[in-house]
Amino acid sequence: MIEKLRGVRDFYPEDYYGRRQIYDTLTRTVRRYGFKEIATPSIESLEMITKKSGDAIVDEIYAFKDKGGRDICLIPELTPSVARMIVSRQKVLTKPVKWCSLSRHWRYERPQKGRQREFYQFNVDVFGVRSARADFEILACGIDCMRELGLDNFMFHVSNRNILDAFFTSYGVDPKAAFPIVDKRSKVQEDDFREMLGEIGVDDKCYGRLVSLLEIKGPLHESIPKIAAALGEGAENASSAIDDLSTLGVLLDHYGFSKHCMADLSIVRGLAYYTDMVFEVFDKKKSLRSLFGGGRYDNLIELLGGQSMPAAGFAIGIPILEILMKEEGIWPQPDFGPEYYIVTIGDVDKTAIDILSHVRRSHTAEMSLGTTKPSKQLKHANNIGAKHVIIVGERELADSNVTLKDLSSGDQQLLSVEELKKIVA
Amino acid sequence: MIEKLRGVRDFYPEDYYGRRQIYDTLTRTVRRYGFKEIATPSIESLEMITKKSGDAIVDEIYAFKDKGGRDICLIPELTPSVARMIVSRQKVLTKPVKWCSLSRHWRYERPQKGRQREFYQFNVDVFGVRSARADFEILACGIDCMRELGLDNFMFHVSNRNILDAFFTSYGVDPKAAFPIVDKRSKVQEDDFREMLGEIGVDDKCYGRLVSLLEIKGPLHESIPKIAAALGEGAENASSAIDDLSTLGVLLDHYGFSKHCMADLSIVRGLAYYTDMVFEVFDKKKSLRSLFGGGRYDNLIELLGGQSMPAAGFAIGIPILEILMKEEGIWPQPDFGPEYYIVTIGDVDKTAIDILSHVRRSHTAEMSLGTTKPSKQLKHANNIGAKHVIIVGERELADSNVTLKDLSSGDQQLLSVEELKKIVA
Repeated sequence: MIEKLRGVRDFYPEDYYGRRQIYDTLTRTVRRYGFKEIATPSIESLEMITKKSGDAIVDEIYAFKDKGGRDICLIPELTPSVARMIVSRQKVLTKPVKWCSLSRHWRYERPQKGRQREFYQFNVDVFGVRSARADFEILACGIDCMRELGLDNFMFHVSNRNILDAFFTSYGVDPKAAFPIVDKRSKVQEDDFREMLGEIGVDDKCYGRLVSLLEIKGPLHESIPKIAAALGEGAENASSAIDDLSTLGVLLDHYGFSKHCMADLSIVRGLAYYTDMVFEVFDKKKSLRSLFGGGRYDNLIELLGGQSMPAAGFAIGIPILEILMKEEGIWPQPDFGPEYYIVTIGDVDKTAIDILSHVRRSHTAEMSLGTTKPSKQLKHANNIGAKHVIIVGERELADSNVTLKDLSSGDQQLLSVEELKKIVA
Repeated sequence: MIEKLRGVRDFYPEDYYGRRQIYDTLTRTVRRYGFKEIATPSIESLEMITKKSGDAIVDEIYAFKDKGGRDICLIPELTPSVARMIVSRQKVLTKPVKWCSLSRHWRYERPQKGRQREFYQFNVDVFGVRSARADFEILACGIDCMRELGLDNFMFHVSNRNILDAFFTSYGVDPKAAFPIVDKRSKVQEDDFREMLGEIGVDDKCYGRLVSLLEIKGPLHESIPKIAAALGEGAENASSAIDDLSTLGVLLDHYGFSKHCMADLSIVRGLAYYTDMVFEVFDKKKSLRSLFGGGRYDNLIELLGGQSMPAAGFAIGIPILEILMKEEGIWPQPDFGPEYYIVTIGDVDKTAIDILSHVRRSHTAEMSLGTTKPSKQLKHANNIGAKHVIIVGERELADSNVTLKDLSSGDQQLLSVEELKKIVA
């Protein structure tokens, strides 16, 4: 017997059913925000991926030579491909460009729960506008996606990287060196955190203020004055970032989504390519497990050869949603039973097939594909969860009648074929 | 600027829109037949693919070694993966197993119109039943897919390979040698066809009868008596295949689909793995261009290590549907304009964003992401094809009013915010 590869998943109907609901819900939700679906290729030149993520990524992805000797790879994420699509039509696209996509990705990593070698992500991006309203649009859309899936125990932790950037700069510390350390904070001991920061020139005063800043966590409108106060001398250069964050808080409040958002400067997102606003979504129940994140990345389009163009977006991994929704007991349960199952008794094919054809115009309907006894057909209809059976029997058909039976209530009616067709339309 | 790879396609929203409609239509149609969606991995062991298709396929696909040294490939078709999924749960699956899938495939071929290196297919298969009814289910479902897409100028050419098998056997000719030649008939000169058949032992009498058989093309119920007559001494061994084809014709007739079907013994489908019923779908307008095909393949599950299990199905390539629907002028045209666009005049964010939040619960709604003048917002609303604008202006808002304007008729009403929310719910 041939096995599937390690780290990939077969979706049987009962596995796929929930996925389909999630895909449809996410797509339907973001469409209401004016995002339009796109699709990118699964294979791209390796150069494009390393240009964004550096050469080290090659070890973590499916990279290989095609038969023409080109270095190509299975895409590990969507953003570079979307950016490439933007660049190639940059002059003609109407701004803002609002795109979404459900896509498959591959990483050659050690498989573990919620992290497979082949996985699906849902991407949402807006290009061409740099404003608090554009940041708001992305956040509101992300929050709405979670709500529409039936989730409620989540929190968007929002920051603006320019605040910490200004803070570190005012202390003569290189923010590029500091961000990766800040990003690790929750994973290391306090002493180690202090030591790592010391190595890049963070003195006691700076450290004290930093810790105060990182511990401000709460509603945006309450936190922003605290942030401004804690920044001290660094506040001036951060003023526009603070204003943006403040406006973002106001817009989310007007929109009714502020209960799902809090300020949290410890969110910097390790990825070098984020600029300005960043966020990470946490599961409030499971001791703040990170679910997904996003933010603004205003330099990527230029990096990939385009004209400078602002951008913001997020990517939700479908596996973590599946884990979360199953834990919450809201994973969609399949109901595969056909609306109608046609049971035949005797030589009634002509009418039975005609009825099948009629019913299928608007309902799910099935019929035995073999030549089994009526009792077995009925048993099968029950087994597969059919809602109704239509019994077409030689005897009733002599009077042009058939029986419609509701399998849950047991109610049944004798109907003429014409009456049946009117009822089941 | 980084380019996409050769032979792959970027789907911009205007390209993807039609694809999405097709995917949804196909899925919705086959669901009514009781087919359930599955999804397979995109990467599989190379061994599985060569087991079905032979080693020569390696030159035509994306085959490579993963970082663990395994020979793997991007799947060139769905059937082997589906068969693998069947095999791995063969004992517990309720029969008939009816699965469908929209999937992405890759072939390393010279790109040409309608044939890209990365492409989508829609697969439909039924496992576990060997009967004319199961064949009928597959054909009816295929026909319905075409009809639901709005197509009408197509014809399913149906055969049963066992008829020609019995015919050739009765003349002492190896059917395995003869089928590939029959398959080539429309592409070669008559003399060459005759010569190739001569080389495998087809004498004049056999050739004469074969040509008569291959030229019988017409409604199934008319053609079957002709086929039986033309078979002569070979008819006896073909009788069960003829009966099956005859029953299939009767069922399709009861179902109302016989106008889309004809008998055509020249359809053998080159692929070695088909058994019994085979069909190919042709475009009636374009001098019988082949659109897609399918049939019964009762030996594949066993070949891939399972218990013997009958199977039948088809795969529709989405690119050919796109070409065809565009030619017919029925390719779905995108209508991306949002239902509502909110135009703001002055400092009205609180109300405008509250309205936006309300409207988006059930409609597509957008709002400027920048801080542009009202006239520019209105112009943008028109440009993107918005159906209505909701004008939230400081002056009207002083009396708690906003304006709802229908952009196609030009009609506008002054409404209180509460009235608006009731109308747009």
